[in-house]
Formats: sequence, C-alpha cells, structure tokens
Amino acid sequence: MIIVSGVSMELNEIADSIKSMEIRGAGLIARSAAGALKQRALDYKGQDIQALRKQLEDGRDILVASRPTAISLWNSMQATLLGIEQAESVEEMRDLVVSNADRFMTRSSRAVDIIGEFGAKRLRDGMKVMTHCNSKAALSVLKTAHAQGKHIEVYATESRPWKQGLLTVRELGAAGIPTTLIIDSAVRWAMKDIDVVFVGADTVCSNGALINKVGTSQVAMAAHESRVPVIVCAETYKFSPRTLTGELVEIEERDASEIVDPNTLPAGVKVRNPVFDATPPEFIDSIITEVGVISPYAAYEVIVREFGQASIFEE
Amino acid sequence: MIIVSGVSMELNEIADSIKSMEIRGAGLIARSAAGALKQRALDYKGQDIQALRKQLEDGRDILVASRPTAISLWNSMQATLLGIEQAESVEEMRDLVVSNADRFMTRSSRAVDIIGEFGAKRLRDGMKVMTHCNSKAALSVLKTAHAQGKHIEVYATESRPWKQGLLTVRELGAAGIPTTLIIDSAVRWAMKDIDVVFVGADTVCSNGALINKVGTSQVAMAAHESRVPVIVCAETYKFSPRTLTGELVEIEERDASEIVDPNTLPAGVKVRNPVFDATPPEFIDSIITEVGVISPYAAYEVIVREFGQASIFEE
Amino acid sequence: MIIVSGVSMELNEIADSIKSMEIRGAGLIARSAAGALKQRALDYKGQDIQALRKQLEDGRDILVASRPTAISLWNSMQATLLGIEQAESVEEMRDLVVSNADRFMTRSSRAVDIIGEFGAKRLRDGMKVMTHCNSKAALSVLKTAHAQGKHIEVYATESRPWKQGLLTVRELGAAGIPTTLIIDSAVRWAMKDIDVVFVGADTVCSNGALINKVGTSQVAMAAHESRVPVIVCAETYKFSPRTLTGELVEIEERDASEIVDPNTLPAGVKVRNPVFDATPPEFIDSIITEVGVISPYAAYEVIVREFGQASIFEE
Amino acid sequence: MIIVSGVSMELNEIADSIKSMEIRGAGLIARSAAGALKQRALDYKGQDIQALRKQLEDGRDILVASRPTAISLWNSMQATLLGIEQAESVEEMRDLVVSNADRFMTRSSRAVDIIGEFGAKRLRDGMKVMTHCNSKAALSVLKTAHAQGKHIEVYATESRPWKQGLLTVRELGAAGIPTTLIIDSAVRWAMKDIDVVFVGADTVCSNGALINKVGTSQVAMAAHESRVPVIVCAETYKFSPRTLTGELVEIEERDASEIVDPNTLPAGVKVRNPVFDATPPEFIDSIITEVGVISPYAAYEVIVREFGQASIFEE
Amino acid sequence: MIIVSGVSMELNEIADSIKSMEIRGAGLIARSAAGALKQRALDYKGQDIQALRKQLEDGRDILVASRPTAISLWNSMQATLLGIEQAESVEEMRDLVVSNADRFMTRSSRAVDIIGEFGAKRLRDGMKVMTHCNSKAALSVLKTAHAQGKHIEVYATESRPWKQGLLTVRELGAAGIPTTLIIDSAVRWAMKDIDVVFVGADTVCSNGALINKVGTSQVAMAAHESRVPVIVCAETYKFSPRTLTGELVEIEERDASEIVDPNTLPAGVKVRNPVFDATPPEFIDSIITEVGVISPYAAYEVIVREFGQASIFEE
Amino acid sequence: MIIVSGVSMELNEIADSIKSMEIRGAGLIARSAAGALKQRALDYKGQDIQALRKQLEDGRDILVASRPTAISLWNSMQATLLGIEQAESVEEMRDLVVSNADRFMTRSSRAVDIIGEFGAKRLRDGMKVMTHCNSKAALSVLKTAHAQGKHIEVYATESRPWKQGLLTVRELGAAGIPTTLIIDSAVRWAMKDIDVVFVGADTVCSNGALINKVGTSQVAMAAHESRVPVIVCAETYKFSPRTLTGELVEIEERDASEIVDPNTLPAGVKVRNPVFDATPPEFIDSIITEVGVISPYAAYEVIVREFGQASIFEE
Repeated sequence: MIIVSGVSMELNEIADSIKSMEIRGAGLIARSAAGALKQRALDYKGQDIQALRKQLEDGRDILVASRPTAISLWNSMQATLLGIEQAESVEEMRDLVVSNADRFMTRSSRAVDIIGEFGAKRLRDGMKVMTHCNSKAALSVLKTAHAQGKHIEVYATESRPWKQGLLTVRELGAAGIPTTLIIDSAVRWAMKDIDVVFVGADTVCSNGALINKVGTSQVAMAAHESRVPVIVCAETYKFSPRTLTGELVEIEERDASEIVDPNTLPAGVKVRNPVFDATPPEFIDSIITEVGVISPYAAYEVIVREFGQASIFEE
Repeated sequence: MIIVSGVSMELNEIADSIKSMEIRGAGLIARSAAGALKQRALDYKGQDIQALRKQLEDGRDILVASRPTAISLWNSMQATLLGIEQAESVEEMRDLVVSNADRFMTRSSRAVDIIGEFGAKRLRDGMKVMTHCNSKAALSVLKTAHAQGKHIEVYATESRPWKQGLLTVRELGAAGIPTTLIIDSAVRWAMKDIDVVFVGADTVCSNGALINKVGTSQVAMAAHESRVPVIVCAETYKFSPRTLTGELVEIEERDASEIVDPNTLPAGVKVRNPVFDATPPEFIDSIITEVGVISPYAAYEVIVREFGQASIFEE
Repeated sequence: MIIVSGVSMELNEIADSIKSMEIRGAGLIARSAAGALKQRALDYKGQDIQALRKQLEDGRDILVASRPTAISLWNSMQATLLGIEQAESVEEMRDLVVSNADRFMTRSSRAVDIIGEFGAKRLRDGMKVMTHCNSKAALSVLKTAHAQGKHIEVYATESRPWKQGLLTVRELGAAGIPTTLIIDSAVRWAMKDIDVVFVGADTVCSNGALINKVGTSQVAMAAHESRVPVIVCAETYKFSPRTLTGELVEIEERDASEIVDPNTLPAGVKVRNPVFDATPPEFIDSIITEVGVISPYAAYEVIVREFGQASIFEE
Repeated sequence: MIIVSGVSMELNEIADSIKSMEIRGAGLIARSAAGALKQRALDYKGQDIQALRKQLEDGRDILVASRPTAISLWNSMQATLLGIEQAESVEEMRDLVVSNADRFMTRSSRAVDIIGEFGAKRLRDGMKVMTHCNSKAALSVLKTAHAQGKHIEVYATESRPWKQGLLTVRELGAAGIPTTLIIDSAVRWAMKDIDVVFVGADTVCSNGALINKVGTSQVAMAAHESRVPVIVCAETYKFSPRTLTGELVEIEERDASEIVDPNTLPAGVKVRNPVFDATPPEFIDSIITEVGVISPYAAYEVIVREFGQASIFEE
Repeated sequence: MIIVSGVSMELNEIADSIKSMEIRGAGLIARSAAGALKQRALDYKGQDIQALRKQLEDGRDILVASRPTAISLWNSMQATLLGIEQAESVEEMRDLVVSNADRFMTRSSRAVDIIGEFGAKRLRDGMKVMTHCNSKAALSVLKTAHAQGKHIEVYATESRPWKQGLLTVRELGAAGIPTTLIIDSAVRWAMKDIDVVFVGADTVCSNGALINKVGTSQVAMAAHESRVPVIVCAETYKFSPRTLTGELVEIEERDASEIVDPNTLPAGVKVRNPVFDATPPEFIDSIITEVGVISPYAAYEVIVREFGQASIFEE
Repeated sequence: MIIVSGVSMELNEIADSIKSMEIRGAGLIARSAAGALKQRALDYKGQDIQALRKQLEDGRDILVASRPTAISLWNSMQATLLGIEQAESVEEMRDLVVSNADRFMTRSSRAVDIIGEFGAKRLRDGMKVMTHCNSKAALSVLKTAHAQGKHIEVYATESRPWKQGLLTVRELGAAGIPTTLIIDSAVRWAMKDIDVVFVGADTVCSNGALINKVGTSQVAMAAHESRVPVIVCAETYKFSPRTLTGELVEIEERDASEIVDPNTLPAGVKVRNPVFDATPPEFIDSIITEVGVISPYAAYEVIVREFGQASIFEE
C-alpha cells in the first residue's frame, strides 16, 4: 500500500486512478506507478525469484495499460525494473527494485526544480521571454529567475483552443512577473522584441524531435528566423525509448466542439483539432533536463543512459 | 448627387458615411469617393479653371479625411485627379476627371472578378488550399475554380480574435466547397498536406512587403518552409504610394477586451492585440492583381504605372 | 512571299512548316512568322483598313495555331501587331506592321550574339562554368569568352533522357574549350569547384520563375547552396505575357520509351518523363537578355515594356 | 573451414573470393570474414596465447587487404577481435573471438530485417516514398510496410550511369508495390508529391555525414527544401571508426566508358564519374540502424558503443 | 565658366580638378560635370547643330575620362545629354541640355536631404541602428531622425583599414546622438541588440546587387540572419546603367601598406586589400533613393526611368 | 615539488604563477595544476584517507581560484580527482590521483599534435584554408599538412584589436606556407576562393556551441553560406562541464583603449570590446579533438565520457 497525495492505495487502485484521471500530470503518474511497483516488491514474502519477477511484470503491465500513451509511465516502469533479469536472489531483486524506484521518484520529483535552477542561469536582467501553453518546467525557470531578483518580462500565447495561456498569465502575474498576453497569430509579430523562448515538452524523440502542444513548432520556427534561442524544458522521463524502434508518436486529435459548435457549420465543413505538433531539432537551441543542458541531438545518448537500450537481439 | 448602394448622396454625405462606417470595405469606399469627385466635376457650371481645381482638391481633402489610413481611398483620389494640372480648360479638366473616375470605378469593381479568373488558373483538380482570415479576393479565386468544376479542398484558419475563419468556412461550405477549419496554431501541422496558399492584402508596400491580417506572416513562413507557394490577391488600389516616401504602415492595435476580459487578469498582465502583421516579400510567390500576376518586387512598378510618381521635386 | 533559309514561302506554307517542324527553334519560328505577317501587310492592295486588320489578325491566328505552346511565336505576333488598333489609315497600319516586324526580326536575330557579349563580361580567366542541357544562348556566352582569349573550363551535364549534354561537350570541345561531362546526379558533387552557372530558358514567367529543361531547378538549387551565381540567358521573346493573366506554363510530359522500354518493366511500374521544371527566382542571380542584365524579378517590367500590357478592360 | 553460400572455404580462400568479387555485398563480406576468423580461432590447437593472437591478427590483415576500402569488412574484424588483448588464456581468447564473431554475424544478418521493421512504422497508408539507387535496407522497409497491408507508392530514380533504378522498380513492381520511374533530373520536380525519402548508406562518418550513391545529396537537398524527411537505412557496420581519426572517405571515380564511349568525344573533353557523394547531416531526419532510430549526429556515440574507441594513446 | 565651391572654372579645368581629386565626392563630381557641360552648351554661339553636338560629346568624353570608374560622373553625363539626338535646332538642343543639367544638379544636390527625410520615417523612439563605414546619405537619415526629437542609438563599425568608423562616431557624437564603436569582427555579436541597419552605396547594379565598402556584405548577412532589416541609402546616380550590359563592377584593391608595413612580414606572406564587396539583393530590405523607397530588385526600373535604356540596336 | 618549464614549484607557487600569468596558455595551466595535485598526493605520508581527500580538495580549490574562468584548469582538476570518493585506502586514492594526473598530462600535452595529425587528413594538395586569430591547434593542422608535403595556401584574418593575425602570418610564413593577410571585413569577399576553414576553441558548450575569439561566428556564417566546411580544433579540456548545468560562458569585455584612445572621442561615444563570440553548432562541420573527429552535437557525450557527469542528486 502506498500513499499518493495523502491516500493509501494498492497497485490496482493506482492503475484505476490513473485511468480515471484522478491521478494526473506526467510526473505524478510516473511516480505513483513506480511507488506501486516498489510496494509490490516489498509485499512479496516468498522465495521464488521467478514468481517475484512475474508479479512485478504483471504489475507493470497493469499500470502501463492504465494510460498506454503516457511515455512518463512507460519510462518509470523501465527505470524501476532496470536490471532485474540479472538479480540472483529474491532479496537482490527486491533491493534493486526498491532502489530503482526510489531513485526514479526522488529524481523525477526534484527534476522540475533542478530544471528551474539550470534554466534561470540563461536569463539576465531585462530579458524578454516568450512561452507557449502552460508548462510546469518552463514556468519553473521563469519563477526561479524572478525569485533571484532578475527583472524579466514574459510574452505568453493564448494557446487556443483551451487557452492555457490564461493560466500562464495568471500564474506569472500572481508571482509578480510582468506578463503580456498575445493571440497565437501574433507570435511572429512579437518575436522581434523577444530574447529567448522557453517551452515544455510532451515527448522528446530519439532523433531529437520535440512533440509538444500544437503551435510549438510555429513559435520555434519564428524564433529561429529571428535568431532567438528556443530552450525546451524536459524531464528525462519525457524522452521516448519507444521512438528508438521507429515508433511514431501519434498526434492525438480531439473533438471539434472544443473549437466551434459543429451545429453552427454548414455541411461539408470539417474541423481538425490536433493536440500536439512536432518541432524539428534544428529549431531547438538546447534541452534542459535534470541531468544537464544538452543539444536535442543528444536524445539518443540520454535514452540509452537513463533507460537502457532495449535488448533487441536477446529477446 | 450619386448613388451608392441605391441611395443618392452628396460628397459630404459620402464622406460622413465613410466616417460612420455605413460605407465599408476597401473597394466600396474607394469607388464611392471617386464617384463623389466625378459628380463634383460635373456639377461645376463656371468657367474658372482654378476654381474647379480648388473645388476638386477640397473635395479630395474632405473625402481623404473621412478615413485617413485607408490606402484605397487615397489611391482613388490620386487616380481620379491624375493629370488635372495639365488641363487647359474647364472642359478638359472635367472630361479628364470623369474619365479617370469612370476608369477607376470600372476597374476596381471588376478587379475582384478578374483576380478570381487569374487565380483560378493556378488551381488544378485535387488541390488543397489554405487561406487565412476572410479575403473577398482570395475567396473569389476559390469560388471561381469551384464553379469551373475543379475539385478543390480548403483549409481555413480560425483567425482569432474575431474568428473571421468562421465566416470563411460558412461561405465556402455554402458554396459546396469541402472545407476544414483549424486553429491558428495548427497551421504548420496542416501545411504538409497543402498545395498552395491564397491570402488577401490590406496594403502592399513599395518594397514588396505585405501588410495583412495578423498571422499572415506565420502562414507564409510555414508555407515557404514547405515549398508551398503563397499567392496574394490584391487589387492595385491596395498598393501604397505613400510607402514610396518611406512612410511606415502603422500596425493598428485594438482593445484587449477583444481577446479576454481584462478584469479577469491579475495586475501586471497586459494584452497586446495587433490587427495586422508584415510579411516579407521573400515568402510570397506572386501577387495577383487585376492588371496581372506579378512578383511582389514589382510593387514599385505597379505604383508608378497606376498612380504616377509623387512629384517630389516640383512641389 | 518571304524567304526562310533561302526558300520563299507564303504565310500558310510557313504555318505548315512550323507545324511539321521543318522550321524549328524558338528564334527561327518567331522570325519566320513575323516575316510572314509583314509580307501579308505588304501584299494588301486595298484601302479598307478594317479589311487589312482582319487579314492580319487571321494571319496571326493561323500562325499561332501552328504551334500554340511556343511563347516565342506568340510574342512575335504581339510585337508585330503592336499598336495597329490606333492606325488611322491603311498606309499607317502597313508601315507600322513593317517596322514592328523588322524591329522584331532584327533584334531577335541579333539577340543571341548580344547575350553572348553581355554574358562574356561575367567570365574571367580561370573560371569554371557549369551548364545544363544545350542552350544556344548560354553556349554563345561561353564561346564568346573563349574567343576573347579567356581561359575557361566548362562542366556539362549529361541531361538525360536525350543526352543533349553530349551535343554540348562536342560543340564546346570542337571550339577548343576544355570541357568535362558529368551525369546529372553528380551536379552537387561537382558544384564545389564551379564559379558560375549559365543556363538557357524555355519561358520566363511574369513573377520571375524560369521554365527550362528538367533538372535546371536542381542545378540552380545546388548552385545557390554553394553561393555560386546562376545566370539565365533568355531572349526577351522567351518572357511570357500569358503568365500575366495567371496562365500556368504546362509542363509537357513525353513518352516513357525515351527513358526505358516499357515492355521490360513489370506491371504496376509507371514512368514519368517531364520535359521541363520550374526554377524559383530566388535561385537566379540575373537574367541576361538582349536589352540588358536584369533581376528575374524585373520580368513584369520587361513583358510590359516589350509586348504591351494585354488590354484587359477594353476587350 | 567454414561454409559461405553452401561452399566450405579456408580463410585465404575467403579473402580471395572477396577480392574476386565472388563474395559480394557489404553484409556478406563482413560475415564471411568474421566467420573465417572465428574458424581460425577454433582451429588453433596450441597453448601459446601470443601465437594465437598473432594468427588472428595475421588473418585479419589478410582479410582486410582483400577489400581495403570496405568499411563493413574493417568493422567486422574490429568487432571480432574486440577485447582480445585482455584475454589471459588461449581458451578465453578463443571463446571471446567465437562469441564476438557469432554476435556480429547474428546481428548483421538480422540487421536488414530489423531495419525493415523499424522503418515500416514510419509509413502510413497512402504515403508516397522516394528512393534512390538500389538499397537492400531501404527496400526492406518498403516491402515490410507493403507486407503489412499498407498502401504505399514509390518513386524510384533511374540512378545513372548503372541504372540501378531499373533493378529497384523491377523488384518493387514484382512485389506488387505501385512504382514510378523518373530520371535523376526530375527529383525536384517530383518532390512536391513525396511524403518521405528512404535511402541506404555506403558509409556513415563520425560527424554524421553520409557517403552514398552519387546523387543522394541532391535528393536529400530537394527533400529538405520541401520539408520532406530523409531517412537513411544503415546497419551499424556502415558507421566508420576510421573517420574518427580524420580519415576522409575517398570518393571512388570509375571509368568514363560507363557514361559514354570516349572515342565519340572530341579531344579536350573529359568525363568524370564519381560513384558516391557526401550528404551533410542537416539534410537527414534520422538514421535507422538495427540498434534504433537515431539522429545522424549520434554517429560518434554509435561508433564508440559498437566498435570501441580506437586506443590512440596506448599504441 | 561655372562656379564650383566658389571658384569659376572651364570644362577642362573641372576635368583636371576631378582627376587631381580637388573636386571629390560622388555628388559634387557629378554636379560639377553637369554644370560644365551646360556651360559649354550656353557658350556655343554658332548655328550648326552637328557642331554643337560634337562639342557636347567631346566635353562629355573629357569629363568621363577624368574619373572613368565613377558611376555618378557617367550618370550625370547620360542625364545631361538625354534626348539630344532628337533636337531639331541648336536652340532646342541647348535648351534641352540646360534643363537636363539643371534638373540633374537640383535633384542630386537635394537627394541626400530627401533620403534623410524618407529614411527618418523608418526610425522610431528607442531604436538601435547599426551603420558601417561613413556614408553621407546614411548619416543624413540618422541626423534627421535625431533632429526630429527621436531618441535613437547607433552602433558604428570601426571599418578597417581606414577606420572611417572614427569619423562616423565623431560626427554622430558631435550631433548629440549616443553612439557605440565596435570592431568589424563584433558585428554579429552586437546584432542581437540592433533594430535596423542603414548603409550607403557605392554602386547599385542592374540586378539589385550592392557594391559598397568592404564588410557591408557581412553586416548585411548578419542582419538578415537576425531578421534585422538592411536599408541602403543610394542617390539614383549610384545606379549603374553599365551593369545592364553585363559589365562587372571591378572591385578595386589598394596597397598592402594600408593594412600593415609589408617589410615586417616574412617572404611568402601577401596582403589583399579590397575596397568594396558585393551584397546580394536578398540581404537588402529596401533602397531609399530620392525618388522613393524601393526593393533592390527594382534597380532595372530605376535605371531605365532615370537614364534611358542604352540604345543597343541603333548604334 | 614539481617542475614547470624547468622550475620546481609547490602547489601554492604554481597557483601564484597562474594568477600572475607567468604560467600561461590553456594547456600549460591545466597540466601544471594537475602535476601540483599529483605531487600533493605523493607528498602525503599519513594513513588518514579523509585527511588526504581534504588536502586534495583544498589544493584543487586553491588552484581553481587562481583563474576561475579557465575551463581547462577546472577540467584538469575534475580529471585528476575523478573517482577518488570510491577509493578505500590512502594507497588506492594516491595511485588513482597519480594515474589520473599522468593520463591527463600525457594526453593534453599530446593533444595538439594528435589534432594536427587528424586535421591534416582533411587537407589535400591545392586547398585554400582560412583561419581566424592565432590558434595553436589550428596552426598545428596547417603545419602538419605542409610538413607532409601538401601544397596548401592560407588566408589569415587580421583579428582586430590585437591583430593576432600578424602572429599567424609570421608563423606560417616562417614555416614556408604561402599565406595571405586580409582585414576582418574582407572575410566574405575572400570566402569564394576558400575550401575549408580551421579555427581553434576557447570553450565548447554542452549543446555544441563554440565560444572563441570574437569574429569567429562571422567567419563561420560566411563559410556556411558558401558551403565551405568549418572545422574546429579543440582539445577535450576545452569542453565545459559547467555549461551542463546551464551556466553561461560569460563573454569578457576588455578596455576601450585597445581599440581607440577614448580621449579622442566626443562625449556620448562609447566603445564595446568583447573578446569572444558564440558560434552556433549548425555552422560547424566537425570538431577535431584528441579522441576523434566528432559533430559539435556530440559535446555532451564527450563531457560525460571525459569528466564524468556531475553528480547532481547525490550532493
């Protein structure tokens, strides 16, 4: 049994809570799942190493199935079970899982703060920053710099259709940071006054491409045109080992009604509503992770170092 | 007295109607003003050529003052009075003004149709077109091609904050053209499926830059990145002789409340709401005018040919 | 009756010879047709100006129909009949047609030499030039420079499928110019040693785009990437007034058998064999015409100056 | 003695067969050589570890000399002898060489299939693919996708001078994949209809540059201009550790007669016939290897991980 | 006899003074020469039109020979004699030359001021401007804007080897404009803070390329990379009709000793000291002339309109 | 006590000599400091492992403080103390420090030669090379190639304000290499004749950006525009682990008097004199280090491999 946000839950309950979106946010989902698997290892009282392994792998499968497209969840499972096939006793396997899970949970819970620290070093007094949508890690950078006494100004995009830009300006405004809201079409118009762009990440692919809130690629293209550096804030659990095997990140499309009431449109008019788009690495100056500031092209290195190279030939 | 939309009006009334926005739209404003000046020429019954000239120039000034930033209005006045300083009699001056005004009115009223004809030749069966905002001239191209039996599909942007994209999809949908609505942030995402972009123009500058609805420059940049031609539909009265003397086209900013209720924002949060942006000519394949399909870099040639070179040294 | 290559022919015979390709080459076709129309003007013995005009326009239609896609033919007709609607007597119309035709024939027959002179000024001792296909005007530049004693070297592409590159290397080799043949795929490989590219033109569009032998746009792109200037050699009769009205230059596709015997291919394999491609003006440094060295973006200016603006509103 | 294509051969015989091109293809050469070295290890019956090492190194030298420019052969020797300097007994060295060789042979023989699997995930129904020359790995991707029921279409370049494009269209046509043949000059013309480019690799350099069939760099440049991703299919044994020490991949030039009978050319005409060209990494979206889909800029990482860093200081 | 800077001189004296550099500066040279030719026309007392024409053409040749590479001198002669071949009497020719010369002198003497007025409209309060070398026309823009009360700041390059940047900072500093001096290598470093670049022109070519002080092309490239507009200030007499016929602007190289004492260098070390370089038109936003703000690609139009198209066929 | 340039010194003396610039140059500083720390380990005679560790860390702090911004010094300390926290005895710790220091000193002292060897392979007979400022490693490449009998020519920039270009041309001239000096503004003018650019490095950042002598980024931009490869010569101790944590490399600005006597300038004129600028990795073909030729994007890999990943979570 583990405690998530003050509530104790079994692995199955955690899986259910992830599915029902009671547990939300890439980081919290990942840590809850790692904790659940750790608890399952601790709960095992027998001496059959194969039985333990099966329990762990079943647990992993249940958890992964609760949100199959969440790369953070997948990564927390990879990180928690890393190396268990080499354990030679129940104790060794249990210890490994516990230490893996603890390391993952500690690091992931501190990642946003560390990224905030690293990123704030890129900001100097008087700088104007643009951000898109509402990224916890990107805002951590801005708030850290502000807390350090740096005078920065922020341009935030509205981010249709959900207008998370309103969340962003409220959050930054409440923190005392001078902030300006613009519509998504005004990005290139505003770019001539911007010194640096900070955005978050949904997924980083093995070739360095960034999957993030739709519109990110336009912001990055306009910044690149103006020689304004684009800095992506991404915890390492956002890097996708699956893309290593060629898997495409599917770009979810949501309901038309988020944009317009379809009943007000004549027949023959469709609405397309993608959630994400793909930014090519050539538009990205660097990615700030909790293990350092890297080129997007170092994504393969990060994936292999953090999650191990999927053992293609041995399976 | 002349007839505008079925109502007869004096020059001063026309100026008032332009000011009050009863007479709206770049083309209608321009033609109404040309007609008013023509009528003033016809109404003059004396034989004093200087008196006629003064009346005409006064009329011009009244009309221009009714909407000082409308380049179409300025251009209609330039075109109507073109060459009057060389007239040697009242009759000659009157005839010149009448023929200038008639030529301008005929051409400008036919310009959208001609642009539709020219532009439709660029469309072939199966093509996918993107458009931004709600340009009469650009839609004329799409509807002309559709009427010719070509099967085209259109992607229209929402065009925040006024969402003229909804007007566009309703107009095209009603015309039976398959149309898809996307948010402004999804332009680059959708661009990989697009064959050509058609947009309108607010103003074409003497160095070939395009001033148009904010977001146009982003659409054009994304198209250029994908080798998708961007075609601007612009009647010649959209070309600005004023920019020849270095005058910048001021980019109007409108009220924050068009984007968000400012009362819902914390102190320290501003909103910027530009109406237009500037697209550099290197993102534009060609401009379709009623006098032909040209490179944006031929803007100087069009201005001089249509409106005469402002006589800098003689004044 | 006029003399083409030593043979006297009537207008209808000339049209037939153009159709049967006895009269070949953009320049010769254009001049033969201009000569035929001049002769028809001279042959008219009546005093009915409308009758003469009809004869001339009928003659033009017959000639144009003999090769409807040849822009040089169309242009020679435009140039020959330029202004006849303003003639006030049979004599005036006849004189105008004769002088128009003479001017067109003189200029077009000298154009290649003049282009050679102009272009040769761009070449200095030791330069390496690349050319594509087999352009009379481009080779005129190279041979003129060589005749002036400049030591140049030429790289010529094979130019599949007809391998006109072999004609080029034979012609240049025979002229004593050191020449190297490469396959079309080796253009970018060779570009690092090249100082300038000279190509010919099939058609220059009103927005500055160049239609020329397929592969030209690749050569130009590779040159542009290496900051190697691309210079197009184009007689003014290659500039297309038709593109002013939005007409697309249709890119002819020829038979598969020019590339491979289709019988040797399995079912399901198609062959596409375009003759031309379109080079965007941003890849072109300048166009050398017989009226001067211009930017491709000056195409509209050249068209209007040489052939008159098609009278759109009066017709 | 080992069996290559059903024939048993000694190491020297294998070296001879490589030299005489009886054993052909980067993969088969590499595996035959690894097998030969493994057999030599197994055949050694003494107990002198230095003698065994010498035998192995002599064997390596003989094999490498049979095709000194083949990077796959070099890599197979590096991989097979990896770590032998640390073996402390004849048995240990023999076991190491056997397991190294087996691992290399297994992986390299499966690499094309794995690349096919990975690459097929990038293809969706309705996509149009361009390929150049005749790459086993690239065609593996296309055939895998087709076998999965995806409807794809392929454009294949002729690939002068050897016209391997004909092999490609015949192979794909026979597999039931709709395929279109174009000449090499028509690549940019066709690119506007293409969704993705797949090519093979001769060599991948340590800075991410690709050496492949001449013309590849033009295809990649045209794709890049149109925002069409270029995906390179390269087994890891195509990555060159030699380039780590600054060695340039020499671009072989072959005989003029492959292009044209030199006797038909005048004096002063040369023919240059390079086999390969170099594609810069900025034109490449990703490289698919059997260990994953990576950025070309991860080449250094792959080389060091797969073949060890050449020990520069110890030697 | 005419008055140059308060001294009256004959045509030959003026030619001598130009040669000896007593009369200096593109504008003064041009106006002095025009004045000299006008005087010669006025001085002619005979009635032989051919004699007058010969005198004028002889005068032109003498003047042109005094500084054969100065395009302003050439242009003033073209402008002054424009149309004389059509004069039908001595009086008509004299009047034409006088009015041509007066118009040229008036316009050219006012050109710098007009350019200053036009350019100042491009500057707004708070803008940072970069300039290179010491252009009278570019500084006119900056000083006009400052005189209008706009607060601008200027970055000036040192402009080795003559360090005209020191003249620039002294002139601007004396005018009270805040100015910063940087070395030529710091241009790209400083560009991130710059809003617009203003430079002068030595020569504008018919394809839109700019010949100006060496280093201008680097400044323009760095500006273009940062989406900073580059504005060229060029009186129309800087546009070169000679480049219309393909003539290259020769880039003068000056003595090594301007850079370093050659005696302090070992044998085998050369010094190259070009005075100008060529900036391609794609790096230039617009050219401000006294007849308006144009695209560089409108150079052909300006040349033809101002100086007439050299009559190639008639001569 | 250790010997630096023939003088024996204690750790504190070495720190003092670094501070006073008696010990100069990135490499010598780094090796001296490593030697001092090694000596301190050898001098320790006790058996208290914590005491030894404290002595070493104190020594490191003293040395680092002698030149806090020198990344080579920092790196030599990191490399010398790498792994000491895992030593389990005084002997083990001492041995580790000695072997670490020896390895670092050996490698760093040979690095320039190895880079020279690697780089020389990129040069072929007849090549023209550009270099900027006066980099030991870059000149090592040129002199190595020359010593191998390759005929190369070098263009060297003056490199204001210190004119290290004069050192470069003297050094290369003395070595018998044909060399040409140009001013910094003539880089783009000269680039059309250049085959490859070699520059040195002050610091390589974790995202691949290069910090080097101001002007380097302009040289690289001009090279990139002309498809001329830019090769950076950088010993691995120039790679900055500090940038991994987001630290910006501060660009030192030096005194105005290095450029001009400030007393000769009017009030209101400032001088900015940055020493370095930042070159983005997309302008760099490859970096030659003593461990191989890599893409700049492999910087993260090099940092982690050579200096260990800073242990962020454990501290």
